[in-house]
Amino acid sequence: MGGSRPTVAVVGLGLVGGSLARALTAAGHRVLGVDRPHVRRKARRARAVQATASTVEAAAECDVVVLAAPPRASRALLARLARVARPGLVVTDVGSVKGPIVREARRLRLRSFVGGHPMAGTERHGFAASCAELFRGAAWWIVPAEDERATRIVRRLARTVGAHPVIVDAAVHDRVVAFLSHAPQVVSWALLEAARRDPAARRHLSAAGPGFRDMTRLAGSPVALWREILDENRHEVVRALAEVGRRLAGKRGR
Amino acid sequence: MGGSRPTVAVVGLGLVGGSLARALTAAGHRVLGVDRPHVRRKARRARAVQATASTVEAAAECDVVVLAAPPRASRALLARLARVARPGLVVTDVGSVKGPIVREARRLRLRSFVGGHPMAGTERHGFAASCAELFRGAAWWIVPAEDERATRIVRRLARTVGAHPVIVDAAVHDRVVAFLSHAPQVVSWALLEAARRDPAARRHLSAAGPGFRDMTRLAGSPVALWREILDENRHEVVRALAEVGRRLAGKRGR
Repeated sequence: MGGSRPTVAVVGLGLVGGSLARALTAAGHRVLGVDRPHVRRKARRARAVQATASTVEAAAECDVVVLAAPPRASRALLARLARVARPGLVVTDVGSVKGPIVREARRLRLRSFVGGHPMAGTERHGFAASCAELFRGAAWWIVPAEDERATRIVRRLARTVGAHPVIVDAAVHDRVVAFLSHAPQVVSWALLEAARRDPAARRHLSAAGPGFRDMTRLAGSPVALWREILDENRHEVVRALAEVGRRLAGKRGR
Repeated sequence: MGGSRPTVAVVGLGLVGGSLARALTAAGHRVLGVDRPHVRRKARRARAVQATASTVEAAAECDVVVLAAPPRASRALLARLARVARPGLVVTDVGSVKGPIVREARRLRLRSFVGGHPMAGTERHGFAASCAELFRGAAWWIVPAEDERATRIVRRLARTVGAHPVIVDAAVHDRVVAFLSHAPQVVSWALLEAARRDPAARRHLSAAGPGFRDMTRLAGSPVALWREILDENRHEVVRALAEVGRRLAGKRGR
């Protein structure tokens, strides 16, 4: 540990993990990448990471482990880490839902687990879409750990990559992102599907202006990942969509 | 007439009319502007128009009159033009709904009225937001006139400003734009309102990422103008929103 720039392992080198690896490497951190062999090769070739490792090796060698896999995979990794983590190993994640993983960390008595969620991304995915500037200007939600030192370290990493940390508790986070991210995702799909189901609108989809393109851009996001996210935050997403539905119904009646 | 560049009057120098005046002037057309005195002054100062006139003067002096006022005002102008227009004066509009104005033109026996609607715009409004490049790459719906020469002239104007004309009948147009433009507008408001009504989401609105910002950008559009548009296309908008609502309900149930 010692120095001011902790060594960081990023587990999952997709859009968010790959971008984080690039940004931390650019800021002078030593970054280890964990992913399947062909992704690791790409990340090494792009100099997004200095080396690659398994999750267990990464836990032994790094000061901070960032879980950047899809939600369920990250939860499974958390359990694996709990078995090998030395006391004080900072573990954090970048997932879109905080309740389930924060509860799992408590259950596993990972006192240095910090919930994290950068409000950045695009409809693209995979390491090929990653870029060091992804987090610039974005909010980075942080659900504090019992271990205050761990929270401080993660806040500093968020600032290092240009984001501004926002301390929040897991329940409030999940409520808020249902309105600001999950419901908009579902609405984006619904708009595109509705247009595609109408024969006339489908035939003239290419005539759509910038408004429609902006509103259906998210519909290009990876469906499997989003199903998992929506399922993890099901209760809050249903609530937010019901509120959107009420606003819509009000406008229809006007 | 004679030359290949008809003289064009643009009635209403807001975002769309102002942009059209700028684009046609830039392409070498003589353009007359019609609007309230303080807007005319701005348009002249910006060299978006060569001169200004009243609607009646413009009808006498120009080859083409483009109605670019809000929908109801444009319909009222159409009736006024019908009383002074010489045979062959090409009249067109840029409104978001085509059924009512096309019916009105038929009722007034304006054989050279061409329904028009460029699928371009931003959430901003007024002459200050206008720009000559607004239509570049956009579709420009055209509901043909009885007078084929009039249709040809308007198609050429659309191409001149960088748009690609799409011939359509009024009913199909209104169906399609309900899905591609009007429903998205209403959904954009609903998303923003839903987030603002939730105390936690409202407090954290500034943490929203690019997805939410894109999806609520349209919510900044002028409300009075949009109320008119939605009211004019009420039947199709209700239909499209119902379909969006069904897609949403399907996803909620999943």
